[in-house]
Amino acid sequence: MTQTTQTQAQTPEAQALTIAEVRLTPILVADPPLLNTQGVHQPYTPRLIIEVVTEGGVTGIGETYGDTKYLDLARPLAEKLPGLGVTDLNGLFTLADEVAVDASRVENSVDVGGLRGVQTADKLRLSIVSGFEVACLDAWGKAAGLPVHALLGGKVRDRVEYSAYLFYRWAEHPDGVACEPDDWDAAVDPAGVVAQAERFSRDYGFTSFKLKGGVFEPAEEIAAIRALAERFPGQPMRLDPNGAWSVPTSLHVAEELRDVLEYLEDPTSGTPGMAEVAGAAGVPLATNMCVTTFGEIREAFTKGAVQVVLSDHHYWGGLRNTRELAAICRTFGVGLSMHSNTHLGISLAAMTHVAATVPNLDYACDSHYPWQTEDVITERLTFRDGRLDVSDAPGLGVELDRERLAVLHQRWLDDDGTMRDRDDAAAMRVADPEWETPAIPRW
Amino acid sequence: MTQTTQTQAQTPEAQALTIAEVRLTPILVADPPLLNTQGVHQPYTPRLIIEVVTEGGVTGIGETYGDTKYLDLARPLAEKLPGLGVTDLNGLFTLADEVAVDASRVENSVDVGGLRGVQTADKLRLSIVSGFEVACLDAWGKAAGLPVHALLGGKVRDRVEYSAYLFYRWAEHPDGVACEPDDWDAAVDPAGVVAQAERFSRDYGFTSFKLKGGVFEPAEEIAAIRALAERFPGQPMRLDPNGAWSVPTSLHVAEELRDVLEYLEDPTSGTPGMAEVAGAAGVPLATNMCVTTFGEIREAFTKGAVQVVLSDHHYWGGLRNTRELAAICRTFGVGLSMHSNTHLGISLAAMTHVAATVPNLDYACDSHYPWQTEDVITERLTFRDGRLDVSDAPGLGVELDRERLAVLHQRWLDDDGTMRDRDDAAAMRVADPEWETPAIPRW
Repeated sequence: MTQTTQTQAQTPEAQALTIAEVRLTPILVADPPLLNTQGVHQPYTPRLIIEVVTEGGVTGIGETYGDTKYLDLARPLAEKLPGLGVTDLNGLFTLADEVAVDASRVENSVDVGGLRGVQTADKLRLSIVSGFEVACLDAWGKAAGLPVHALLGGKVRDRVEYSAYLFYRWAEHPDGVACEPDDWDAAVDPAGVVAQAERFSRDYGFTSFKLKGGVFEPAEEIAAIRALAERFPGQPMRLDPNGAWSVPTSLHVAEELRDVLEYLEDPTSGTPGMAEVAGAAGVPLATNMCVTTFGEIREAFTKGAVQVVLSDHHYWGGLRNTRELAAICRTFGVGLSMHSNTHLGISLAAMTHVAATVPNLDYACDSHYPWQTEDVITERLTFRDGRLDVSDAPGLGVELDRERLAVLHQRWLDDDGTMRDRDDAAAMRVADPEWETPAIPRW
Repeated sequence: MTQTTQTQAQTPEAQALTIAEVRLTPILVADPPLLNTQGVHQPYTPRLIIEVVTEGGVTGIGETYGDTKYLDLARPLAEKLPGLGVTDLNGLFTLADEVAVDASRVENSVDVGGLRGVQTADKLRLSIVSGFEVACLDAWGKAAGLPVHALLGGKVRDRVEYSAYLFYRWAEHPDGVACEPDDWDAAVDPAGVVAQAERFSRDYGFTSFKLKGGVFEPAEEIAAIRALAERFPGQPMRLDPNGAWSVPTSLHVAEELRDVLEYLEDPTSGTPGMAEVAGAAGVPLATNMCVTTFGEIREAFTKGAVQVVLSDHHYWGGLRNTRELAAICRTFGVGLSMHSNTHLGISLAAMTHVAATVPNLDYACDSHYPWQTEDVITERLTFRDGRLDVSDAPGLGVELDRERLAVLHQRWLDDDGTMRDRDDAAAMRVADPEWETPAIPRW
């Protein structure tokens, strides 16, 4: 990519949109003891809050992963940004390419939750760029009096549908661990999962349900989905074991649940295995593990390994890249839904803006948001009828709560290092010292 | 696609960007007697100039095809636009979908120059939408003090390279036909083609050369390309017979010119034939005929039928769709270049803005612009070193010359109907009453 040089005089309006200052604030946010195939969520998860201040005095905000390896890239990139226009979102990628990534740190590190495919330096860059991109779009939108969706071509729907993201979970984190308790019960069997779904349905109006699986033996999880389907007949169900199953196990589960599943998410690991399952499962396969970058699309689509891609603006490189992914899926007849990891209201607003602009967002989006009791925005977003209204206010339509931000940042400063890098296996070892990250396929 | 309703109050800034008025001005522009496999360009070609005026009083301009079937769609669409925001570019597509197209008129009509693949109502819609989209982006950019490239994510290069678009041509249109003469000589043999290329090289600095072929027997056109390669050693050559050859003829030409061709463009017609040629030609195949819509990509890419797609924002549906096409090509390892038909400076500015933002624009773009002696902008764009500077002025960076527009519109009003629909075969029959559109493959 050729770097450009500013050869012509900018207008005063463009000058006002130039980045003057960037602020990075790592925080730790409370996270409940949600189980997955790798272990359990830590009591606190790192996130990075990004503020971009323009020459015109407008501040835009973004949010992304906050683990050390992300901070290590975000800091030098932030130093390069003053002078860039908040509209120069292609230039942001050029600048990110210039920041060296400590490959050893990336490739040997534990993945964020271990659950988003192979780690690479490029994916790391994109995850950081996405946070800056959202902050730039928020600043641009606020300065221009336009919602972020307008900067992406305009909304094609007024509300975005989300699904209930069900987790096996404990009621509390292990004894003796500092944490912020919540008011949810444990859910470790079909009855617990159904009770959780009932609360999600009652409080937020969600009508489709996804269960994070790969935690118990497949028969247990099949029973949970069947119990859900019985309680909510005709409503879409999804099951996601994060690649924990072999091909035969995946096909067995598909056989057992075909009549109630909207899709089966990452039943097995790797594109060849997914292709094998897809060929015989009789139910669409979704993924946020075997297709997580543009580079992985060609093989997976050509082999018919996936029928639904779960986009995630954090690791696809932002809202504009998400729209490009959507165009590719549309062109190749592959469905599109949206993945989520632990996130706060800034990212939920960003997800909602981009989802509002994508005509082929065929499924309700995933979001962890209901599990987050803490936030850094002044007014939490509220699901009604399982949907969020798309804001027409300038920018993302959310405001930073600086007081809360300071509190959560202080928690990060005070941390002795154990929470600053999310590691679900380490968190599990607090309860079970013998725990090792399971080899896959686990079943 | 769900239509949205304006549920929330707009900001004053968004209100100012609402479309208040749309003006459509069909014109006839002088076109030289350029030859192609279907016939010869008419002395005048219809174009449609679109003006979009916002509530804030800013006017944006766009340009697209101006044949009757395009006007028939543009007029009802224009009536629907007041009230839409110029940022609501997704909404523009929704509105276009609501306008009925007279399918019989489209499908039985002669294609624009006969040279852009199968005609469909959808393609017609996209060609119209693109003109409105450019006008909206121009208006938005002018109102915001931002260049159009900034609204597309920002330029990644300061200059965009174009290639010399060589044509077999006569010195003049047939005797007795009203026309605007130009100062070019005839070019109907290798020496004429080389002389034309020399002038292009001298006047504009182009360093790559494309010859529109399919006019003479392949041996003649092979000789012309070889003469060019001898005169401009090491410089990229392209040959485009618009699908006029059989598969064996295509392979024969590829064999003869493999060492000097950058790519061979649409040697034969249809995806299966292109795939057959691509498999054995040993030279990349480019197309603006077998891949002209998103719906045609999957088959062509899967079969390896094309190695380079020639984008054209007019018929791909605008500048944002062009960027999506670029993302798809990037993802599937297919090259990208840019196609051109007869166009004026508004479209050239639009082409240059979008080309500036696409990292994988791997080849110099085509443009007919040097052949156009007339324009509707106040200051013609100038190629230097075969390149155009990317404007950082607000909007497209070009201004409408209303006096010239009025003159060219008057010509359209005065026309008895013979020029309002481009028909290269009809134009050829003026010189050769026996001429029929050749069946393909012609050789």
